[in-house]
Amino acid sequence: MRLRNVKNKEEILNSCDILIKDFGGVKGKWQKEFNNNNPIYIEIGMGKGKFIIENAIRYPNINFIGIEKYDSVLARAVQKVPSDIKNLRFVRVDAKNINDVFDKEVDRIYLNFSDPWPKDRHAIRRLTSEKFLKMYEEIFKDTKEIYQKTDNRKLFEYSIISLVKNGYMLEDICLDLHNSNRENIIISEYEEKFVKNNNTIYYLVAKK
Amino acid sequence: MRLRNVKNKEEILNSCDILIKDFGGVKGKWQKEFNNNNPIYIEIGMGKGKFIIENAIRYPNINFIGIEKYDSVLARAVQKVPSDIKNLRFVRVDAKNINDVFDKEVDRIYLNFSDPWPKDRHAIRRLTSEKFLKMYEEIFKDTKEIYQKTDNRKLFEYSIISLVKNGYMLEDICLDLHNSNRENIIISEYEEKFVKNNNTIYYLVAKK
Repeated sequence: MRLRNVKNKEEILNSCDILIKDFGGVKGKWQKEFNNNNPIYIEIGMGKGKFIIENAIRYPNINFIGIEKYDSVLARAVQKVPSDIKNLRFVRVDAKNINDVFDKEVDRIYLNFSDPWPKDRHAIRRLTSEKFLKMYEEIFKDTKEIYQKTDNRKLFEYSIISLVKNGYMLEDICLDLHNSNRENIIISEYEEKFVKNNNTIYYLVAKK
Repeated sequence: MRLRNVKNKEEILNSCDILIKDFGGVKGKWQKEFNNNNPIYIEIGMGKGKFIIENAIRYPNINFIGIEKYDSVLARAVQKVPSDIKNLRFVRVDAKNINDVFDKEVDRIYLNFSDPWPKDRHAIRRLTSEKFLKMYEEIFKDTKEIYQKTDNRKLFEYSIISLVKNGYMLEDICLDLHNSNRENIIISEYEEKFVKNNNTIYYLVAKK
């Protein structure tokens, strides 16, 4: 995520009531926070939030939580949120601390255009490495669902191998999402740019 | 495989001593046929044989068997075989009868540019359908290895899902084989053409 500073970001974040600062206090009780029993879908690394905000608008019976570690990016997302939205929350945290936020309550994880960490010695930092998949085991409820989109071929190849090795089935896979016949695709900011440049977008759904 | 008729194909095939006509008699005894204990790698749908002949030349300590159902194509392959080759055999048979040829003795199966059978109702005919994967269980020895290459995106997507569903791990995957840094790739006739046209070639190695 390219980081352009947002001047009044502190102010924006402090005045945002869907940004949950005390996530430790909500851990294990997210459905209570939403005041319903609806499924919980999270996006790790939501960036400027286009994808998760559009999802929250389109699917009011799902609880969405966007995770982002960078203040400036998060501030941009906050500015886009419709005022009356009930099924959306944000959390400012690094993915590596995701276990401080959830406990056996997440139904689906979205990973969109995650950092590919191209160097082999950084592979463990990829959000589909065994290390992260093991962490997700602690936050998932029953069925585990991971939805991934990326334009990075090597990250995608790595992810397929890693997911399968860690016991996931592949429910769906598309090796050129925007030249397939799929409809109703909700795209992220990044994706918008890539599609314009005619980059190949890879997509998978893994389930365990 | 495009079928251009070869006029004297019967003559070519009859005079070829590495084409095993009585494969039923050799079933379960292929190592005896080769007179060694080397691993057995087969290519189902070898076409004009470029891939398997080059493999046999490069790897003399592996026994290679090319499977092809079409006479004319097979005749082309026969014409390319070097006269002194010891580790190569051909069998003329339809893939769906592969269990008539082998019994618990194959170490690796190559599937190169197989017919994609694009219609959903023909999916069962794809060489990575559950039906075929179950047949391969009967011809594989211990470890099961399937190497696949194709330029057909939908066949490749289907294959990944089917292989994983049927218990295979993915050892390797490449979503753009000829723009990766892989070396020593042995290419088939089809592949040669596709690479010239800059088509994306997909590649995987599955193991069980």
